Amino acid sequence: MAGRAFKKKHLLGIEDLTPNDIQLILETAESFVEISTRDIKKVPALKGKTVVNLFFEDSTRTRSSFEIAAKRLSADLINFNSSVSSLKKGESLKDTVLTLEAMNPHIIVIRHPASGSPKYLTTFARSSIVNAGDGFHEHPTQALLDALTIKQNFRKLKGLKIAIVGDILHSRVARSNIFLHHKLGNTVNLIGPPSLVPKEFEDMGANVFYDLHRGIEGADAVMMLRVQAERGARNYFPSIREYRKFFEINQDAFAFAKSEAILMHPGPMNRDVEIETSLADSDRSVILQQVTNGIAVRMAVLYLLKGD
Amino acid sequence: MAGRAFKKKHLLGIEDLTPNDIQLILETAESFVEISTRDIKKVPALKGKTVVNLFFEDSTRTRSSFEIAAKRLSADLINFNSSVSSLKKGESLKDTVLTLEAMNPHIIVIRHPASGSPKYLTTFARSSIVNAGDGFHEHPTQALLDALTIKQNFRKLKGLKIAIVGDILHSRVARSNIFLHHKLGNTVNLIGPPSLVPKEFEDMGANVFYDLHRGIEGADAVMMLRVQAERGARNYFPSIREYRKFFEINQDAFAFAKSEAILMHPGPMNRDVEIETSLADSDRSVILQQVTNGIAVRMAVLYLLKGD
Amino acid sequence: MAGRAFKKKHLLGIEDLTPNDIQLILETAESFVEISTRDIKKVPALKGKTVVNLFFEDSTRTRSSFEIAAKRLSADLINFNSSVSSLKKGESLKDTVLTLEAMNPHIIVIRHPASGSPKYLTTFARSSIVNAGDGFHEHPTQALLDALTIKQNFRKLKGLKIAIVGDILHSRVARSNIFLHHKLGNTVNLIGPPSLVPKEFEDMGANVFYDLHRGIEGADAVMMLRVQAERGARNYFPSIREYRKFFEINQDAFAFAKSEAILMHPGPMNRDVEIETSLADSDRSVILQQVTNGIAVRMAVLYLLKGD
Repeated sequence: MAGRAFKKKHLLGIEDLTPNDIQLILETAESFVEISTRDIKKVPALKGKTVVNLFFEDSTRTRSSFEIAAKRLSADLINFNSSVSSLKKGESLKDTVLTLEAMNPHIIVIRHPASGSPKYLTTFARSSIVNAGDGFHEHPTQALLDALTIKQNFRKLKGLKIAIVGDILHSRVARSNIFLHHKLGNTVNLIGPPSLVPKEFEDMGANVFYDLHRGIEGADAVMMLRVQAERGARNYFPSIREYRKFFEINQDAFAFAKSEAILMHPGPMNRDVEIETSLADSDRSVILQQVTNGIAVRMAVLYLLKGD
Repeated sequence: MAGRAFKKKHLLGIEDLTPNDIQLILETAESFVEISTRDIKKVPALKGKTVVNLFFEDSTRTRSSFEIAAKRLSADLINFNSSVSSLKKGESLKDTVLTLEAMNPHIIVIRHPASGSPKYLTTFARSSIVNAGDGFHEHPTQALLDALTIKQNFRKLKGLKIAIVGDILHSRVARSNIFLHHKLGNTVNLIGPPSLVPKEFEDMGANVFYDLHRGIEGADAVMMLRVQAERGARNYFPSIREYRKFFEINQDAFAFAKSEAILMHPGPMNRDVEIETSLADSDRSVILQQVTNGIAVRMAVLYLLKGD
Repeated sequence: MAGRAFKKKHLLGIEDLTPNDIQLILETAESFVEISTRDIKKVPALKGKTVVNLFFEDSTRTRSSFEIAAKRLSADLINFNSSVSSLKKGESLKDTVLTLEAMNPHIIVIRHPASGSPKYLTTFARSSIVNAGDGFHEHPTQALLDALTIKQNFRKLKGLKIAIVGDILHSRVARSNIFLHHKLGNTVNLIGPPSLVPKEFEDMGANVFYDLHRGIEGADAVMMLRVQAERGARNYFPSIREYRKFFEINQDAFAFAKSEAILMHPGPMNRDVEIETSLADSDRSVILQQVTNGIAVRMAVLYLLKGD
């Protein structure tokens, strides 16, 4: 990290980052990977600073990952539970955030169903804002932890072929990954039914496939997206059975990827819907490595935004 | 703070405090204001002590303020969520608190819909009890943070005129402020419809007005209270529209106050119900300064009750 | 503790412990009792380690006890709230725990309605697993804190007569206590209506009584179990009134125990259902001492499982 500093005040999305920004975050994360394997998993970097988790969507997984990351940096972490918050009393997002800010937090980590809300916050907030997922827009720390996982497996992050399978249309994970791999010089193949993978994604520099085998062919990494039944994804295809038939990753389909290919999933998985159980649990699966890297990447982001 | 100590074990309300107690809390809070502007916002004063947030009403704002205050003093903070607590299993408040106490907390911060419940706790509890709002009775840390804000703006807390506008009848914030300013030698004007500002408040040493302009005239500070639609306040006036017509603070009305007057609100605001948006966002508004002072005042209270 | 180490990686139940294991935990807890009376109730034993509270049943009491215990050992404590978790999205318990584990916690404390789920976790988890109550199976830290309380009162844990009264059939507290006292050489009498105290419990080495006075006769400690109306216990007896008539502990019934006998209850109590108020508040009641010991016992368990 010597001599290089992260110049941005916020982390809103991968779209805003330069390749150098991405490399700096990943290199910083690599140094934090080691800390989480130590007996004492703690460094004093953010001691005496307050990090707020402001989540407007349920997500124990991402919230806990940021919470553990903050605590391993010795920050004070406040979970601001929106379901019991002033919002129920009709307060606007702006007033809620201004109120929080008046308590002098260093960083506000926000997850919100409205695309663009983290950026909106930066128009008036003094704290650093970290986007932990905004609508169908971006989920930058997920793409960064995915990238770290790919880098650890291939010792490079360039000239690779990344296949992303599923509901691309509604996936902030996919969008952040497309931005990231396009910037770093990797090929991105998007695969799914036409209703969920519009041709317009080619404008982002990705290739669109409607056939799983062809889209996966020669891929280094295959990322399966969650079928979000709870968000009405099923309106976009006839049935889960039909979906599985064409887009579930199984041993047969995965054989089309490179022999050393890795299988990824942002979680939580629907076993035997988008991903066959035997494959999810195989040695090609790096799904839990992704979770572990989530802590390191979030530590890196909180650390680099710390300023000073 | 040299040579002066806070003699009380609990903070139940402003009514119980002497003017000296109030001054001591405010002076202590002033020293903590500075800490929250430091890079490392932390002092070891309450290290190894446990503070419990025991909230029986939703209030992320006040709960978080106490949580941040406790953590900046290095205390361990436990949020005891009443909605999932033993109370659902029929346990009495007394047994719940005795159980908590057996875990040796230093301070229990309680918010409860029943007036007098913090005082009831002191009849059997060994810990220090802090009232974070009890029914329509008192909300002492709110009045103290209001007072700190007034003091910062006028460099004195005596001989001022404080106007409080809205639902005085159901406001623990108003009651705590009336006690405080009466004790310190300030004039308090109460303004609202007769159904919400009974003449009996004059017995507390306040002046009652039913006309906004007359009540505000010459005021140094104007405190707007929230129209608590969720608590049925609307039963006391014909309509929000009618209420706004007579009691919303807007630029015209605020012009009746002194030229250097400040505008206050305990939050969360109903913009364009009890307070005009342009005024809420004007340089006369000290609403966010109040929130910032909330941390300092709560740090002071937790610190002074720490004993030793 | 010199020279003796806890050999187990998990705490799943009392059934798995040797008498020496039990003694080691209790002796370690005794040293932690003292810490909770200090001004600074904190030791650095688990600094930099993450403890996860993974609760699938509401229990503020037990959850807070583990949280305070972990914090007094300087651990980072993460409350993983299952009601807003990935489980709602259909994730299996195994995938939830594997995900949590990938974040490198040291210990996972689990409460789950399914008997045997903590043991199931040990078939794949790398962390230490602590059972905080699993179905009708075991609640080992409760039995250990009960044992510590008995030991403090009688300065021994052998040759005593322990009477347990109530819904034995559905009580994990009773089962853990039966195992513990049988191992240590105490007599256990179980008392309740036949529907709730099947004769089969005699196979565990306990004596079964259907008459309160006869079962209590000569007891050193009387443990009352909670009538769990919320779990349908009432299906097992005609009415609360009928239950009280035969199995509520009152002054008359308690007189059948030894003159120095202690009265215990795991909480929360139903006053004047299974326990008469005057007796619950008498000097024979050690109910709050049990709560205090809960912190010390849980500190001991977290400490001993810490490895090193």
